[in-house]
Amino acid sequence: MGGVIKESVSIDLLKRKMDDFAKERDWEKFHSPRNLLLALVGEVGELSEIFQWKGEVPKGLPDWKEEEKEHLGEELSDVLLYLIRLSDICGVDLGQAALRKLHLNALKYPVNGSSTEYENANNNYSTTD
Amino acid sequence: MGGVIKESVSIDLLKRKMDDFAKERDWEKFHSPRNLLLALVGEVGELSEIFQWKGEVPKGLPDWKEEEKEHLGEELSDVLLYLIRLSDICGVDLGQAALRKLHLNALKYPVNGSSTEYENANNNYSTTD
Amino acid sequence: MGGVIKESVSIDLLKRKMDDFAKERDWEKFHSPRNLLLALVGEVGELSEIFQWKGEVPKGLPDWKEEEKEHLGEELSDVLLYLIRLSDICGVDLGQAALRKLHLNALKYPVNGSSTEYENANNNYSTTD
Amino acid sequence: MGGVIKESVSIDLLKRKMDDFAKERDWEKFHSPRNLLLALVGEVGELSEIFQWKGEVPKGLPDWKEEEKEHLGEELSDVLLYLIRLSDICGVDLGQAALRKLHLNALKYPVNGSSTEYENANNNYSTTD
Repeated sequence: MGGVIKESVSIDLLKRKMDDFAKERDWEKFHSPRNLLLALVGEVGELSEIFQWKGEVPKGLPDWKEEEKEHLGEELSDVLLYLIRLSDICGVDLGQAALRKLHLNALKYPVNGSSTEYENANNNYSTTD
Repeated sequence: MGGVIKESVSIDLLKRKMDDFAKERDWEKFHSPRNLLLALVGEVGELSEIFQWKGEVPKGLPDWKEEEKEHLGEELSDVLLYLIRLSDICGVDLGQAALRKLHLNALKYPVNGSSTEYENANNNYSTTD
Repeated sequence: MGGVIKESVSIDLLKRKMDDFAKERDWEKFHSPRNLLLALVGEVGELSEIFQWKGEVPKGLPDWKEEEKEHLGEELSDVLLYLIRLSDICGVDLGQAALRKLHLNALKYPVNGSSTEYENANNNYSTTD
Repeated sequence: MGGVIKESVSIDLLKRKMDDFAKERDWEKFHSPRNLLLALVGEVGELSEIFQWKGEVPKGLPDWKEEEKEHLGEELSDVLLYLIRLSDICGVDLGQAALRKLHLNALKYPVNGSSTEYENANNNYSTTD
């Protein structure tokens, strides 16, 4: 990119942009918590469709065409944007909540814990969190 | 908060923290694209469970107990963290992709478009994006 | 329908039809458990999109146009068909499993239990089942 | 099973059992379309959690423990039961809708169509149905 340094994108920046976007279009009336939650589920469905018939795919998606990766970026973004909007509408500071959750996860899974512990935690019919 | 200014949380910061977290615990071997995608779907399920029997809920969740909002923040965070990790493992720069998607959305839905157009776009058996 | 009695549709009938459908098109190679699971998630997303901007809707969907209800029937069916196919490919007898689960649910939630118990079971940060 | 023939389980039978179950417990008030839809999403999440850290798994799940397969049967059933209940509350005859959808699919994907056509239909950024 010829020396251009990409700006770091914050959760708050995306939150403000989503809020402006909705205000400018008078879409705030559609953005109730459960409407946004269902929209998020819809986008997760579109994300899943990208991966559905592929079998396992390796990290970095080496064999994907550029347009496929671009499409993937769009669906990942749709999930992110609705998630940030849902959090905002619910009055949750998502960035701070994520830092807090990472801290809780670190306490729950100490570094010297084994992978077996991880597998137990995740496979033993219990939920991850 | 007594004059303390909360730091803005960037997507990249969370990405690095997730990467460190996985490396420190030797969990990278579990983090294939489709494993992470299914983990994301699992967390979206937990998020939905919070809202499932409540009927419509107003913005800001005025009647929710503090512990319910805290729990909500945790589930929103779990979705975010897996989404960021999935993007990273797929080689997608999620922050930049989200800015790009916002730009595409602005072109697709110009400000002077009507809400009716929005409703058509979203209800008429077509997907949002 | 002029005296015609609609045949009862069994899980097994749909299972056999899905199996024939896949065999006839040489699609069995695509139908691995996780491929089908992701396809199911994709269909749940499409189902959610139908409801996403509507706010609460009353039972029976009295205000929906006929074509909307038909579209809803198609998305509900897509979820059902992938669910039946996934069960079959996993070697699970879905019909028998559902009868067994209903029995377990009846033991877990006895008839004289209160709705409060229900709410506790479902809202108290625990999963339904 | 010593000559016992298992009864075929119909969608309608499960629908009636779910309806009785809700009536007996005075749970009908909770069963609005969007409540049930979110409950369905929650169960799909639990189903995904079973598969999330496993990588690809072969048909028939040969290496799974009996208790894992039993648990899988329960989660598949939970999705089925909420799907049937959602359809009923929406006034959709799910069994008939599924037969109709299979017929539409057969028209859309004729038997002499190639797998390539299938892949195009499913991967080319379009939805399956």
